[in-house]
Amino acid sequence: MGLNSNEMTKENSDIHIGPVFKFGGTSMGSIERIEHVADLCLRLKPSAIVVSAMAGETNRLVNLAKEISTNIDVPEYDMLVASGEQVSVSLLSLALRKRGIEPAPMLAPKAGILTDSHFSRASILKVNGESIRVAIQKGQLPVIAGFQGVTEDGYLTSLGRGGSDTSAVAITSGIGSKECVIYTDVDGVFTTDPRICPEARIIRKINYEEMLEMASQGSKVLHIRSVQLAAKWGIKLVVKNTFSQDEGTEMIMMDSTLEGEIVSGIASSQSESWIIAGPSQDPKFNLANVFSILAEKNINVDIINQMVNSKGNIFNFTVAQSDSELSLKILKNHFSNIELSANNDVAKISIVGVGMRTHAGVAARMFRCLAENNIEVLLVTTSEIKIGCLIPRNLVNSAVQVLHKEFVSLGL
Amino acid sequence: MGLNSNEMTKENSDIHIGPVFKFGGTSMGSIERIEHVADLCLRLKPSAIVVSAMAGETNRLVNLAKEISTNIDVPEYDMLVASGEQVSVSLLSLALRKRGIEPAPMLAPKAGILTDSHFSRASILKVNGESIRVAIQKGQLPVIAGFQGVTEDGYLTSLGRGGSDTSAVAITSGIGSKECVIYTDVDGVFTTDPRICPEARIIRKINYEEMLEMASQGSKVLHIRSVQLAAKWGIKLVVKNTFSQDEGTEMIMMDSTLEGEIVSGIASSQSESWIIAGPSQDPKFNLANVFSILAEKNINVDIINQMVNSKGNIFNFTVAQSDSELSLKILKNHFSNIELSANNDVAKISIVGVGMRTHAGVAARMFRCLAENNIEVLLVTTSEIKIGCLIPRNLVNSAVQVLHKEFVSLGL
Repeated sequence: MGLNSNEMTKENSDIHIGPVFKFGGTSMGSIERIEHVADLCLRLKPSAIVVSAMAGETNRLVNLAKEISTNIDVPEYDMLVASGEQVSVSLLSLALRKRGIEPAPMLAPKAGILTDSHFSRASILKVNGESIRVAIQKGQLPVIAGFQGVTEDGYLTSLGRGGSDTSAVAITSGIGSKECVIYTDVDGVFTTDPRICPEARIIRKINYEEMLEMASQGSKVLHIRSVQLAAKWGIKLVVKNTFSQDEGTEMIMMDSTLEGEIVSGIASSQSESWIIAGPSQDPKFNLANVFSILAEKNINVDIINQMVNSKGNIFNFTVAQSDSELSLKILKNHFSNIELSANNDVAKISIVGVGMRTHAGVAARMFRCLAENNIEVLLVTTSEIKIGCLIPRNLVNSAVQVLHKEFVSLGL
Repeated sequence: MGLNSNEMTKENSDIHIGPVFKFGGTSMGSIERIEHVADLCLRLKPSAIVVSAMAGETNRLVNLAKEISTNIDVPEYDMLVASGEQVSVSLLSLALRKRGIEPAPMLAPKAGILTDSHFSRASILKVNGESIRVAIQKGQLPVIAGFQGVTEDGYLTSLGRGGSDTSAVAITSGIGSKECVIYTDVDGVFTTDPRICPEARIIRKINYEEMLEMASQGSKVLHIRSVQLAAKWGIKLVVKNTFSQDEGTEMIMMDSTLEGEIVSGIASSQSESWIIAGPSQDPKFNLANVFSILAEKNINVDIINQMVNSKGNIFNFTVAQSDSELSLKILKNHFSNIELSANNDVAKISIVGVGMRTHAGVAARMFRCLAENNIEVLLVTTSEIKIGCLIPRNLVNSAVQVLHKEFVSLGL
């Protein structure tokens, strides 16, 4: 009894779990790149690796499926898509073994990634990291298929929002590691989109909350769900470029920095639709009713603004362009004699930074900056660490540039 | 207790298991063909389906692997290759669902196909047909990946000799079905190779033993291992063409026919190497020693002929051309002063038929027929239902033609 107990303690404490590396589709895009990734792993010695399908492969598989059927909420669809990651796991494992590293190639069932059975958009319920830990203990390097899971009754699933970044963070947590490095094809998270603003620079350290605001506003480096989970589980998340030596961007907890930059970054998005609903004489046309009937249909509303005139309430709000038509239809069906319009020629621009909380006047400075540059603000939304403005779409690039100059380039 | 017992009996007896269909790579070769296979299954209602990878897909995957490493005896190689069948299972399942059939897509772990862990050439240890039977009971149509299995500790394997025909027969047995239909791209088993002999016709019923002799001699319709297993387990094996209405070839048990054709078919093979070893003065150079040292290296020897002259023993035998060089090397290392030669310009031609056992003079007639056509016989081998001759390679086509005319076309 004493011996068993000792052995178990030894077994559990003996194993040091280092970082988990995740490589995206571009990093796995060719045999040459896979060999490069293997070299990188040989040098940096992660404890486990999570991989995506080779770039283009998932599309190829999806197109094969589409030739037959558009039914994607079925187990065979997920089984098809999962074969893409399976190929990546296999090829990277071969390349590692060639370098004298013993791989433990694992698909979701072996890796213990349990999901619900919402095929084509499954959510991870649990990562049972035992098989992975046992492999690490044996001195093997687990190479795990991202973007997939397995249901309780043994069907493969593919993940919904968050994808393989979320796999990587969930696996990191599931095996008791404290660090997850997401290797991608950019050097890190930029202060704003460098294609719009050449002065954009890499943010070396960013708070999770800032990262969430940046990601959800369109700085598409990481899936937002993976950032949420990393913050929740206290995992250090790092974004690096597979093909450069840049140190990348590291996500840090809010309380680990005393005072941040006032503005860490500028995010922009052009996928919004601006809806003006009302006025309507319908007595049920109020804030609560309008937004609960949209929520019932799973329509996410972003900026919301309420006005009243002599004819009744008027609501200005934004939804994703893909939800725009449906939103109008729902409102028309629910409220009598309602005036409705939708405008897709808009963009949202946001400044993000934890320093905002302690610095007054940031919003005023943003509005003045936009006004001085003749950029009309249509709607405004604010949070503790973000101010977002809806502006005309054709002005979004110049807005990014002037705001970046105002807040980021000067380092204020 | 009584109720439970009743329920179990009901559960076990209620389920009727019809035939298992297996579709090869050509049958799954395109989306159009997969749709055709789905139509065929809708019409003929098999109880389960086993599929190969789309034609060309396995080669594509193997070539990807080769770009990295030639190491194939590793789990990642089998995981890679297995993705080919995974795609086929998924696509056929989508096509079936579109036709109102609910598929149960299954890879080896779910289907319960257990193998040893000889990666890239695993052998099936057991098919636990429970999941497949449960799916059938639910009214689903199981679509199962051929050519793969799973080890006890959860690693995917790919099968060695026998491949997905063997999967299909093992699954047929594992779920308690009595019939396995192998769908391929030929109309059945021919009396001889129709490319060599235009008079070749389909054999409608063939004994398992004859089929084994035909298959192992080069009539490559079915993997020999699947025929052996079907015979052993009493499974009716049928070969049909996916793309024609031909009734195909049915394999029957030896005792189910009173008397067969004298000669059912003519098989030929051009992959033999003829080795002449000896004479040697070495006292250890004898029949037992020579063939046990070759067997130790897993070299299969086919025809064997021993002669003695004044200088010692001389052995004439054939091996696969791929084993020829290795055979010479082994013999050279083991025996002193040995004379050795290998000749690949040979072919083996065999006549096969259960009727031979009861008809004397078949061999003599074969030799006379060959002699009359100036075809030299280099070596001879015989079994109860087969006579095989090694002949010069350039004469193989005319040998097939004259023997087919002599024994098969006349229906004697």
